[in-house]
Amino acid sequence: MSVIHSTLAAKPVQVLVGSRDQVVTPATMRTAMQNSRHVVLARQPQGQPVPADFAVQARTLPDLPAGRVRVEVLYATANPGSRNRLSGQASYARGMALGETMEGPAVGRIVQSRNPDFQAGELVSGPFGWAEHVQVSGRGLRRVPADTPSVSAWAGILSIPGLTGYFGLRDTGAAKAGETVLISSAAGPVGATAGQIARLMGCRVIGIASGAQKLRWLREVAGFDAVVDRAGAATADDLAARIAAAAPDGVDLYFDNVGGPLLDAAIANLRLKGRIVISGQISDYNTAPEQRYGTRRVDSFISKRLRMEGLVVFDFADRFDEATTAMTGWIRDGRLKFKEHIVDGLEALPALFCAQMRGEIFGRALARLAS
Amino acid sequence: MSVIHSTLAAKPVQVLVGSRDQVVTPATMRTAMQNSRHVVLARQPQGQPVPADFAVQARTLPDLPAGRVRVEVLYATANPGSRNRLSGQASYARGMALGETMEGPAVGRIVQSRNPDFQAGELVSGPFGWAEHVQVSGRGLRRVPADTPSVSAWAGILSIPGLTGYFGLRDTGAAKAGETVLISSAAGPVGATAGQIARLMGCRVIGIASGAQKLRWLREVAGFDAVVDRAGAATADDLAARIAAAAPDGVDLYFDNVGGPLLDAAIANLRLKGRIVISGQISDYNTAPEQRYGTRRVDSFISKRLRMEGLVVFDFADRFDEATTAMTGWIRDGRLKFKEHIVDGLEALPALFCAQMRGEIFGRALARLAS
Repeated sequence: MSVIHSTLAAKPVQVLVGSRDQVVTPATMRTAMQNSRHVVLARQPQGQPVPADFAVQARTLPDLPAGRVRVEVLYATANPGSRNRLSGQASYARGMALGETMEGPAVGRIVQSRNPDFQAGELVSGPFGWAEHVQVSGRGLRRVPADTPSVSAWAGILSIPGLTGYFGLRDTGAAKAGETVLISSAAGPVGATAGQIARLMGCRVIGIASGAQKLRWLREVAGFDAVVDRAGAATADDLAARIAAAAPDGVDLYFDNVGGPLLDAAIANLRLKGRIVISGQISDYNTAPEQRYGTRRVDSFISKRLRMEGLVVFDFADRFDEATTAMTGWIRDGRLKFKEHIVDGLEALPALFCAQMRGEIFGRALARLAS
Repeated sequence: MSVIHSTLAAKPVQVLVGSRDQVVTPATMRTAMQNSRHVVLARQPQGQPVPADFAVQARTLPDLPAGRVRVEVLYATANPGSRNRLSGQASYARGMALGETMEGPAVGRIVQSRNPDFQAGELVSGPFGWAEHVQVSGRGLRRVPADTPSVSAWAGILSIPGLTGYFGLRDTGAAKAGETVLISSAAGPVGATAGQIARLMGCRVIGIASGAQKLRWLREVAGFDAVVDRAGAATADDLAARIAAAAPDGVDLYFDNVGGPLLDAAIANLRLKGRIVISGQISDYNTAPEQRYGTRRVDSFISKRLRMEGLVVFDFADRFDEATTAMTGWIRDGRLKFKEHIVDGLEALPALFCAQMRGEIFGRALARLAS
């Protein structure tokens, strides 16, 4: 195992290849037949992650064991949802260990199969992480149709973010035609998907985002009915006034990817029996539990009979095909747009992830590793 | 109209008798035939209410108009839910005007009827407020069965508080047999009713209250499975540890009458897919909106897929008979207990209400006006 650049060079680590349950030891690595490179977590980020928190490693994969497939990764993702797991804190997913391959949804091509359910040449999406080649069991693999309108979308709008938007809006939020739907972080892949699906369902859709570029894309490309600029609003009351201007008759459903004072501003604009879907709380992720903002407006839950519910998209795993079939159709006929920010090569992923966490990336952040 | 003792003596006010849509003017009062007394809001309370915020007034009622009934009030209530309306703030009920008869659920006997749906001698419950006699339309009147096991209960456990417990637990909270249910302010009429109904449904029930007297009543009379003493706990973490000791396997449903750090302590103990019913937020009622505590733990809604929903019992008005029939049966066979604190006479109501708001009353606070 040669280390290309790593802060871990001085101490050997036990590493995982692809699937999280296959430990590669020095003994099995001596039987390797395939070169690969991957990016591991080198140290826990303090606050904002920096590229030196990660390290690129070269390795050779062992003979493919029975029941597994070898996947060449085409697109890996700088997935903001990974941030929580880097600190080793308990969340709905376990924390990542040092030396472990960085996680994230990805899409790739099967180059060798010893699993009868899959054949070489098939496209698959799965949690391959930041690696050029992985060897995984069939568990958690999703088959990508050969005629897909966009391979990269299977690491974005047709993967966790898009599925979160789909099920959060339709199932957890139970959006109905004619309702007014408000969405925070609306230019991100979760919010943009949720908003466009709401439009397709006959809702009026208002997106909250920061800055002219994102707001213009929401209106002109994604077809949102109205937008709210979050930039420069000092308080929940300021934000509430901006939302009220865009939604003078109030909001039926707030799809929240952000949390914090923006959540209270939305609550102030919710109508009787309004609902809140808690999809993300990114404004509180870097804050200690006792300093989190949460919401000050629980009393409004009584006066307005509000309902708030959180979701994790994996609870809907048995319906993922339903969602991707619908979304693929909408992508094909031009009714569902998505934005991608694509860089080249595995080495670009750490810097891409850090830029993403600083809010500098507009669109699903992907690295193209092969094609 | 003679004023017995009132801070309003110096200025004549237009007052309402009983029903809120019948304004009694000096002209109509000259045709009066029935003496009554009532208590009006004399000024808006600043912080904790004091008896001087109210005034007792004597008046004579006019001839009974067609379509109305005259009710002799048997039990009037010092209802904590009235506090919100005294400040003139917008809530789910409108604010009360100065000079208006103090509101509250009550129970009485029809002494004269010009409404074909009701007859003299019938017992009825309704929002009669703090008055000895009222003249009201049939709207909002509920008929009390002649064989009721307790007349006063129709101003308590069979009125708003008990109905809130019933529908909050069964409908909003959707409690199921085998679940663990946690209830705050459990010795109050809402919480005690919800908890006992949860027991009848086959739940394990944990009550939170302050002090040995209430905790003993919850265990020995109301039959709660476990209790948590709230007194002296400094932080949400302290409270969370006490709840964890009583609910080592976690909580499925939290029925919240209190809010504040106690809500966060409950959230910390909720299981996956746990639910929260927001029935009251009394810890935040006397606080300015921007200083309210709310909850800091919205992020837990994602990791644990929590659902939180507020209720106002009037949304279930068309099912009140279902609830009172069930609860009357449980009262009769001894499976549903309730505690009342009864004082005598209309004049006792302001002091009773103020003591109630200071947390000094254990049990539904009632004044017996007639029998």
